Amino acid sequence: MKISSSCIFTDIPTELPEELCQTLLTKPNVRIERIVSKGHCSAEHDWYDQNQDEWVLLLQGRARLAFTNADSIELNPGDYLLIPAHCKHRVDWTSPDTETVWLAIHLFAAEA
Amino acid sequence: MKISSSCIFTDIPTELPEELCQTLLTKPNVRIERIVSKGHCSAEHDWYDQNQDEWVLLLQGRARLAFTNADSIELNPGDYLLIPAHCKHRVDWTSPDTETVWLAIHLFAAEA
Repeated sequence: MKISSSCIFTDIPTELPEELCQTLLTKPNVRIERIVSKGHCSAEHDWYDQNQDEWVLLLQGRARLAFTNADSIELNPGDYLLIPAHCKHRVDWTSPDTETVWLAIHLFAAEA
Repeated sequence: MKISSSCIFTDIPTELPEELCQTLLTKPNVRIERIVSKGHCSAEHDWYDQNQDEWVLLLQGRARLAFTNADSIELNPGDYLLIPAHCKHRVDWTSPDTETVWLAIHLFAAEA
């Protein structure tokens, strides 16, 4: 089998009218995504409430996540965190000046 | 629950007599690791032969992976690849001049 690599910072469209979300790998219980934002954020009262844990690593750009307990977290390149299942959160802000590239790893609970 | 982030580029020891491998997250079927190399590589005939798929993303530095079919892959920041289970490979070279930071996601097969 021929093994090859890809670069996570390439193939970003010049125009990003909407946030770009692409699945890089799907396995049982795991989905690895690249998300590219440029000034995009969640609507004001639009909270993500996910059934699965999500591990997030900011690779490029800048972003801010907000949580329902009024906490917010600023993210710079290299910052990572685990967002537990059902921890409501929204993307409060992403840099309008540059593409913000996220790695998101969705961790689905193993079936009982 | 208080959510906080960490930075994957910090807390790197000044001296790295051996490659540094740290588990960032363990979940059923998944282990997320940070690996820091600085000139480290596998011994010449020491091939990794893993039972699980491994998804690798190079975050900083430079590295070269070798495979038993004589292919080799140069990795620069942002480069990622999937190394399938039992695809024998070794780390052929990492930059001696800077810390190379890898994200490694081990994907264990779900139990039947």
